[in-house]
Amino acid sequence: MNPADNADTTSSPRQREREEVLAKARAAKAAARTIAQATTDTKNEVLLAAADALVARSEELLEANARDIAAGRDAGMSESLIDRLALDADRIAGIAGGLRQVAALPDPVGDVTGGKTLPNGIRMRQVRVPLGVMGMVYEARPNVTVDAFGLALKSGNVALLRGSRSARNSNTALVGVLQDILAQQGLPREAVQLLPCETHDSVQDLITARGLVDLVIPRGGAGLIEAVVTGATVPAIETGTGNCHVYIDGAVDLEQAIAIAINGKTRRPSVCNATETVLLDVAIPDADKLRVVEALQQAGVRIHGDVDVLAAFGVTDVEPATDADWSDEYLSMDIAVGVVDGVDGAVEHIARWSSGHTDAIVTTSIRAAEAFVAGVDSAAVMVNASTAFTDGEQYGFGAEIGISTQKLHARGPMALPELTTTKWVLTGDGQTRP
Amino acid sequence: MNPADNADTTSSPRQREREEVLAKARAAKAAARTIAQATTDTKNEVLLAAADALVARSEELLEANARDIAAGRDAGMSESLIDRLALDADRIAGIAGGLRQVAALPDPVGDVTGGKTLPNGIRMRQVRVPLGVMGMVYEARPNVTVDAFGLALKSGNVALLRGSRSARNSNTALVGVLQDILAQQGLPREAVQLLPCETHDSVQDLITARGLVDLVIPRGGAGLIEAVVTGATVPAIETGTGNCHVYIDGAVDLEQAIAIAINGKTRRPSVCNATETVLLDVAIPDADKLRVVEALQQAGVRIHGDVDVLAAFGVTDVEPATDADWSDEYLSMDIAVGVVDGVDGAVEHIARWSSGHTDAIVTTSIRAAEAFVAGVDSAAVMVNASTAFTDGEQYGFGAEIGISTQKLHARGPMALPELTTTKWVLTGDGQTRP
Repeated sequence: MNPADNADTTSSPRQREREEVLAKARAAKAAARTIAQATTDTKNEVLLAAADALVARSEELLEANARDIAAGRDAGMSESLIDRLALDADRIAGIAGGLRQVAALPDPVGDVTGGKTLPNGIRMRQVRVPLGVMGMVYEARPNVTVDAFGLALKSGNVALLRGSRSARNSNTALVGVLQDILAQQGLPREAVQLLPCETHDSVQDLITARGLVDLVIPRGGAGLIEAVVTGATVPAIETGTGNCHVYIDGAVDLEQAIAIAINGKTRRPSVCNATETVLLDVAIPDADKLRVVEALQQAGVRIHGDVDVLAAFGVTDVEPATDADWSDEYLSMDIAVGVVDGVDGAVEHIARWSSGHTDAIVTTSIRAAEAFVAGVDSAAVMVNASTAFTDGEQYGFGAEIGISTQKLHARGPMALPELTTTKWVLTGDGQTRP
Repeated sequence: MNPADNADTTSSPRQREREEVLAKARAAKAAARTIAQATTDTKNEVLLAAADALVARSEELLEANARDIAAGRDAGMSESLIDRLALDADRIAGIAGGLRQVAALPDPVGDVTGGKTLPNGIRMRQVRVPLGVMGMVYEARPNVTVDAFGLALKSGNVALLRGSRSARNSNTALVGVLQDILAQQGLPREAVQLLPCETHDSVQDLITARGLVDLVIPRGGAGLIEAVVTGATVPAIETGTGNCHVYIDGAVDLEQAIAIAINGKTRRPSVCNATETVLLDVAIPDADKLRVVEALQQAGVRIHGDVDVLAAFGVTDVEPATDADWSDEYLSMDIAVGVVDGVDGAVEHIARWSSGHTDAIVTTSIRAAEAFVAGVDSAAVMVNASTAFTDGEQYGFGAEIGISTQKLHARGPMALPELTTTKWVLTGDGQTRP
């Protein structure tokens, strides 16, 4: 059945939008069966050809992007958002390079992840297979459109992309190029599709398309992530929010601790692995506590905390902290500084306030390190290293679709294997069960 | 803060029920930190002591159970439901034996599932850790109360149990025994708690307790599962519905095919791995098609299907099939029989109607087997074996909490490792990121 047959010519724009999302999801599900069985060679050819085509067709991509930027400026979009939205020749080359990098990664599909022969002679193996249809809800960055396509295709999935309205001309042009390459290589164009973005309701249509969508991943601010994860009736993975802590233990190489805190905070304050809170062991001598804080201040960091607690060891320039200072990401050159009673106090504080992304201890004590690692329940726990290392590239995964802060399916950077599931294949010669 | 401080003495029974669920979830989260760090030895001691205590305290368990059965009879409960609810000395011994079996299984917590040294010298390892708080929503079987506790504890998790109202006296007595043993072994009683079951709303309270509940698993009929999975805002795993198929290829050992179909259908018709549909390759000679159907009929199975299609090869006693015959589980001595055009036709039929639990092919053709395995997207694909083999015990897992039919996190029988997540532990000596 052609999904368009369902269209009701008397329906409202909103109904037509919903019908378009569902029609595209049905087409995606049909395409998924072909993409799941594409060989690694075929998928790599598509990725490399798409990389070349993006560069070759830069002119039309930049024209479309210019329309988005002009509309954004007319709508009063901030220059930092305009910068996220903007493409140029270098950025297109970077996006194309990302596809080539994904082509070079190992294909997880078909990996045998376990197996054995049962006592009755049945041979059992667990094999990696694609998830199927991967929905993505994201904000203005057009590079996510191509990244998501590349990772989805390499892992045998099809991508249903719900990008930002502000990037719609750019996204339409990018997806057009990708679909042309798919068709040239004999694969269904529906392996990547852009969903309507006229209203927020199309997000809801996507995340409730049960039976059609196998996974939805939100990528963006905390509000977007919360809306998708709580509104979804299809499986969703929570990504990204990083309220990361560095606990500096009483037994410590202080210069190392200062370097780790400054690196975690100032390297790229706007990313999810940035350090947002420093916890000082009460056992650190007051002069050393002050050195840590002054070093942060000298690096340009504004200090938030309990004014009295910090004044007790000589810190004067402090913004009074509320609960939000302990619970939220600053994503700026601000940091919260607290004093805790040893590892137990740090673990308590982190259990209460951390988003479960990355939390670090700096210590020379093996006992403190082990207690911290055992007690902190986060996707990554660092010992004597910067929180900035939580990253798919740094972990050696080559690329990532996001950093999962939930516990089911994937925890931490999600790379190609995390975009697959498994199936059990049991081969017998006529066994029946008594 | 004591959760009871929140109680509003002027609140309605419904508000108090909700407050009780949330207070218990908060207590569970606090207990989870202790249970997560319990050693394997401690957990095994609890499991073995609990097994002994259930047997030793059989009398009070049977008294409580008798009250539930009397209330069920008064309310007109069917004898088959009464049978599910009923305990006796043998069943208590079986439940206790289940705990001893779980004690004998390997503890997944602490397993290192991967790791490497990064180029910068950071040592990385991925370690299995408990999920935390596991919610369970289930129907009248009291054995699930103890099974869920045992699997949760062994995997380092705490259990929040929302059992059926019809089993509340039995469940209260069982949980009382388990909590006494936890306390005797120095562990928090809140490692297993029974939630109120006066109204269905308490299910909703559990499955929306974001930040407190790490996973909810429904176990019961299709309606219960759908309600939990679509209503949950905490992570949920879909279990159990099994509309399983056996496709009999044209190239086949017919006696083997008949044995597999009869075994899958008649061994235990009420369970999720029972065969519900037989698909016959159109290429099978009509006389052989008839033999398959007659063999099923002789085994006491009622045939549903397209009357004309089945009449064409001589089957007369057929219930006309509607969509529900192809999509739903019978869980009875009924089966749907269809004719399809080879493996491709079987794969199409299964893609449309299967619940993704277990689907089987019977064939002597390696090409047919491979095409079926590649084309069928289900938790288990069987080649020349009965669908009845999809089962945690049969897979050699020792025990299972359910059979996941979704693709995220776990697919197929869920045993102890599927009740854990992982965390990345990165150990450096002062590394910062350039």
